[in-house]
Amino acid sequence: MKFCSNCGSGALEQKIPAGDNRLRKVCGNCGVIHYENPKVVAGCLPVWEDKVLLCRRAIEPGYGLWNVPSGYLENGESVSEGARREVWEEAAAKVELHYLISLYNIERINQVYLQFVGELLDGAFGVGEESLECALFTEAEIPWDDIAFTSSVFTLRRFFANRRSGEQKLHLASYPAVD
Amino acid sequence: MKFCSNCGSGALEQKIPAGDNRLRKVCGNCGVIHYENPKVVAGCLPVWEDKVLLCRRAIEPGYGLWNVPSGYLENGESVSEGARREVWEEAAAKVELHYLISLYNIERINQVYLQFVGELLDGAFGVGEESLECALFTEAEIPWDDIAFTSSVFTLRRFFANRRSGEQKLHLASYPAVD
Repeated sequence: MKFCSNCGSGALEQKIPAGDNRLRKVCGNCGVIHYENPKVVAGCLPVWEDKVLLCRRAIEPGYGLWNVPSGYLENGESVSEGARREVWEEAAAKVELHYLISLYNIERINQVYLQFVGELLDGAFGVGEESLECALFTEAEIPWDDIAFTSSVFTLRRFFANRRSGEQKLHLASYPAVD
Repeated sequence: MKFCSNCGSGALEQKIPAGDNRLRKVCGNCGVIHYENPKVVAGCLPVWEDKVLLCRRAIEPGYGLWNVPSGYLENGESVSEGARREVWEEAAAKVELHYLISLYNIERINQVYLQFVGELLDGAFGVGEESLECALFTEAEIPWDDIAFTSSVFTLRRFFANRRSGEQKLHLASYPAVD
């Protein structure tokens, strides 16, 4: 942000507004305070029989690497809707969400990942526009060295742990916790 | 947003950018796309023995009504940190978070509530700057007709249900589901 989105002035200052305790961008012309907040990344790990569906990214960041279908939550949608939409956009697949498995914070870049485990309907999938390919993997087949994001590693590891223990447990962590 | 925060131009247009499928605010001068996303509201219901701590709001919206301490997640903090901070700011109290109880979407105003259940440390609390008063309530004492937000009603009802069934269950819903 270089200009005030309320009045167009370039006189933005970093200061702590009256009654606040944090530095904010405040317009020196119109006085509007510009709050900035973390974004939600919604996603879902699709499961089919003993396998999980991953997508190989056709876009940066992480081009060519595999991830759990996820993306920024949009205005007007619920986290569940966002997770289903991302599976559709990345894997051309439909899922029935089972449970929330990860609340994974990356404070440094102001992201909050909320990822579900879901059932891949009929085991059917394609390749979404944002993917080079999509594929089902057993736990032994997961390409651990080629996973795009720590959030995906975290969710995958927790999913297999949950499956072994028979739990549908939500796991909370902050970057870079993956193991 | 009335002016482009990148170049200060007032020539903002609503259009679907190439490769996208949603209307965005796009600057007709510099071409920057202004994405807008939901905000996280982090909170915690503090529990002490058979009671829960609520705060009576000293600010709008909901002035004079009771709520579960909650507020916008800030850049640079985790959801857990945000929840603890809100309890401190509203009730001058410290909590040990136990589990996430609510993922409550209000799509209409682009909010995602993430509320925990936590133990009120030593049963101690005061009155934060944003509150008129804070008080402990048994289930029978909850002022149901004077709760500020549906998210608080949702979390309170689910908390007492969880306590009866002995579960630490996460509940997902979208506004206006409260019962």
